[in-house]
Amino acid sequence: MSLPSLRLKANADRRLRAGHLWVYSNEVDTASTPLGAFAAGDQAVLEAASGKALGIVGVSPNNLICARLLSRDTKHPLDKSLLVHRLQVALSLRERLFDKPCYRLVYGDSDLLPGLVVDRFFDILVVQLASATMERHKDAVLEALLKVLKPSGVLWKNDSGARDAEGLPRHVDTAFGVVPEWVALEENGVSFEAPVIAGQKTGWFYDHRMNRARLAPYVKGKRVLDLFSYIGGWGVQAAAFGASEVMCVDASAFALDGVERNAARNGLSERIICAEGDVFAALRELKAADERFDVVIADPPAFIKRKKDIKNGEAAYRRLNESAMRLLNKDGILVSASCSMHLDEDNLQNILLTSARHLDRNIQLLERGGQGPDHPEHPAIAETRYIKSLTCRLLPS
Amino acid sequence: MSLPSLRLKANADRRLRAGHLWVYSNEVDTASTPLGAFAAGDQAVLEAASGKALGIVGVSPNNLICARLLSRDTKHPLDKSLLVHRLQVALSLRERLFDKPCYRLVYGDSDLLPGLVVDRFFDILVVQLASATMERHKDAVLEALLKVLKPSGVLWKNDSGARDAEGLPRHVDTAFGVVPEWVALEENGVSFEAPVIAGQKTGWFYDHRMNRARLAPYVKGKRVLDLFSYIGGWGVQAAAFGASEVMCVDASAFALDGVERNAARNGLSERIICAEGDVFAALRELKAADERFDVVIADPPAFIKRKKDIKNGEAAYRRLNESAMRLLNKDGILVSASCSMHLDEDNLQNILLTSARHLDRNIQLLERGGQGPDHPEHPAIAETRYIKSLTCRLLPS
Repeated sequence: MSLPSLRLKANADRRLRAGHLWVYSNEVDTASTPLGAFAAGDQAVLEAASGKALGIVGVSPNNLICARLLSRDTKHPLDKSLLVHRLQVALSLRERLFDKPCYRLVYGDSDLLPGLVVDRFFDILVVQLASATMERHKDAVLEALLKVLKPSGVLWKNDSGARDAEGLPRHVDTAFGVVPEWVALEENGVSFEAPVIAGQKTGWFYDHRMNRARLAPYVKGKRVLDLFSYIGGWGVQAAAFGASEVMCVDASAFALDGVERNAARNGLSERIICAEGDVFAALRELKAADERFDVVIADPPAFIKRKKDIKNGEAAYRRLNESAMRLLNKDGILVSASCSMHLDEDNLQNILLTSARHLDRNIQLLERGGQGPDHPEHPAIAETRYIKSLTCRLLPS
Repeated sequence: MSLPSLRLKANADRRLRAGHLWVYSNEVDTASTPLGAFAAGDQAVLEAASGKALGIVGVSPNNLICARLLSRDTKHPLDKSLLVHRLQVALSLRERLFDKPCYRLVYGDSDLLPGLVVDRFFDILVVQLASATMERHKDAVLEALLKVLKPSGVLWKNDSGARDAEGLPRHVDTAFGVVPEWVALEENGVSFEAPVIAGQKTGWFYDHRMNRARLAPYVKGKRVLDLFSYIGGWGVQAAAFGASEVMCVDASAFALDGVERNAARNGLSERIICAEGDVFAALRELKAADERFDVVIADPPAFIKRKKDIKNGEAAYRRLNESAMRLLNKDGILVSASCSMHLDEDNLQNILLTSARHLDRNIQLLERGGQGPDHPEHPAIAETRYIKSLTCRLLPS
């Protein structure tokens, strides 16, 4: 198989040699290798300005990130065989880490499969294709998944915004077998069902699994408030770990139906209360009613989706966390999370410190948590890190 | 009780209002309140330039950090009563977190007890006094500890360098009861003995407890190398979690006697090998002998003790980690730790990425670990954070 070349400008190979996988369109020597000559999803041999081959890329000629490195070995382009190999390498890590086959099996660039995300729920796979190259290899991706994992159902959950930049249509379809509306999973020994078709993203957020596991010593026998609860990932686990009462707040009735379903599944319905409504309004009402909690979990959706949202987003994190602190008992725990890639951990820490000082409370930072090891970071690609979770203790000054 | 005043210059109160606890000598309005008027260990009411009281400080007139905030409440100076209260607050956190009374009970500034560190080993307490104020209140510290914890033995382990800056002599003495040479403790369900009198620091490093707990899924059935093993905190736990073989390397015969003692205590002697010698020399010899490991743990002493050591220190971390990677099997795990406050996590991550690229290996960053919650960070005081542990997977390129 002979692939066309994609030639970089002088010195544009440095970042890739240092470990990165992405090529920006302004780094391509378009005089020798015009991007217009490629169709979206084509593969090419990436070359330094000297002509030296750096590896094989998948090309997205109309995207700012116009190519992603698929392999540093020019002998093996992306095909079913390479997909099978990469899936086996990804699987062997997850099997080492987890008792049950419930995890993010493939995390894009970090698993050297740019544009591919696979979440595993026992024998159901939920797949996101986010690049033209993966879209082109859709059949091979499915064949490789069937071969390595023998699932009973595979879902294409191709409705993410990343597809727009690649010029791909959004759609959700069963790719193989049977995929029910609600799919079982287990996390930290607690059983759940997730709405993989109608829910957010792949239906479940495995990324916070390690942070949820760490709830155990803090919530035992305590009253817990779970803000932006979605279907109860945090709240139901808190109850399972021994919380005396958990209040889950979310604006979505559909999400709260999921909380009730998951509470019932674990025989915890009596200890879990659902409150439907805007979280900021709920915080004001709880304060007005003089309600207090021992532990508050604040894991909001990304308030900062783009760089231009930073100022407003930081203000929202500040408002959320300070309101949450106001509802804490004298010796209270706040678990403050953020999935905004543009809010770094230092900024979240400063927001917590400033809020605590504003309320004249002492704050101890007990634990820093990140995404679990089934979402490995690629250390050269900052974008592969996005989850922050800070566990703080608030005390009287 | 009437305390003298210590007046700050204009605007020098800002950092303290924002949460910090330290006063630097150049921030004091020495015209109104000369530092020379204080004896080391005196208490004073700290005042803003406006005269507004900010709290009570302990004064160390000859130190660059010439005062530390003991309380924002000017009614309660440091005395036995305040010490008892602070110890109870510190204890209630640790009792919530851990099954067994083995932990850092007091972590200085973060527990609002600047200059005081207490490690608890069941009913033995090892205490470090690192400020003139705590030294002055030595009797009250002991009385408060006896009242709150009813220990069978208390050791003053007052041999840290921090005492020099405070003009305090170094000494190690039994303060109360009986303190044996080797003292029992439990960490992550594994039993140990630590040499609290003759060992490093307080005899044991509880700070890495959570990172050691995370070894379990990685080491099961695997061959493990523990570099700078000290008395086997990592290595013996790896064996207890199911490693097939653990090699502990340390330059100190005394430390390796501790490894053997702790291995025997857990019935693990057959799976633990000790190698005495310089770690860098051992790495070369193991490479020459073509030895390979599935997991390498590199938790060296601080290579960067002062800012001027940064360049040489970073080079040492680079050499250590790259040599460790060379000894890994094809799909290997490196646990790379640093306790150098001057090496931040990003730098350690870059060192690992650069080393992996230099060896043409792919690297996944699986877990980021910090100090355990019995070493809470004070979010306003960067110096209270020092432990980094990065768990990486190294794969063929």
